[in-house]
Amino acid sequence: MDLALLEAEAAIAHGDVPVGAIVVNIETGQVIASRHNERELTQDTTAHAEILALRDASIAIGSWRLNEYALVVTLEPCPMCAGACINSRIGLVVFGAADPKAGAMGTLYNLSCDPRLNHEVQVVSGIHAAEGALLLTNYFAKRRG
Amino acid sequence: MDLALLEAEAAIAHGDVPVGAIVVNIETGQVIASRHNERELTQDTTAHAEILALRDASIAIGSWRLNEYALVVTLEPCPMCAGACINSRIGLVVFGAADPKAGAMGTLYNLSCDPRLNHEVQVVSGIHAAEGALLLTNYFAKRRG
Repeated sequence: MDLALLEAEAAIAHGDVPVGAIVVNIETGQVIASRHNERELTQDTTAHAEILALRDASIAIGSWRLNEYALVVTLEPCPMCAGACINSRIGLVVFGAADPKAGAMGTLYNLSCDPRLNHEVQVVSGIHAAEGALLLTNYFAKRRG
Repeated sequence: MDLALLEAEAAIAHGDVPVGAIVVNIETGQVIASRHNERELTQDTTAHAEILALRDASIAIGSWRLNEYALVVTLEPCPMCAGACINSRIGLVVFGAADPKAGAMGTLYNLSCDPRLNHEVQVVSGIHAAEGALLLTNYFAKRRG
């Protein structure tokens, strides 16, 4: 999560909402993808940190199936990103702060454990949540200020 | 939808589930993106037709906000793709066949009209649904056969 928080901070430099995500091998701990939100930078509407990290990870290992990997992200995934996690068959999601506006792994929706979908994923939440949330609070305070 | 169906057919050539998506200007009818599912081709876990088309569209117009555009897709979007539609503020979604396994615009979920999210999108469904569904049925019958 420390690496994900560093990624989140890096987003601020180009005016993006500070969210960072990494993909790591659950067994070995090897990091295979590390990205941050680039929606403003690239004007790509899908460029949330999680989508970019999951894409990098699947291309890095040559498979869209990420069962042996964990996504570690500073903010609870939105429906797009939670859906991408399910589609990728990811083994574990670890997130920091809950997202009352768009959270889809426990807050507004819980896509992680819907038996109607083709994958259920274990979720650990609240890890370094205060640090992740503080980055966001400071970012939005500055934008409004 | 005819163009989206042609896109869907093109996915079969590289062993991908036949789903096609285009993004079109609601007022002028100009097509600014046209893609099909490339998950198997690229092994990119996020490479559904809708994600690729929305990305192309936002990069083409230089903005992640797609309010003036419609996404036309042969199959009901999954949670990832429905979430991407909401995130993009897309003006309209037109889809063909409903998806009983992952549909997130009316079947399993309806992300298109949740006032808690930051955008609601008008949806028209069932357009050339039989043609879109037939492509999928034939594809899966051949894979099993």
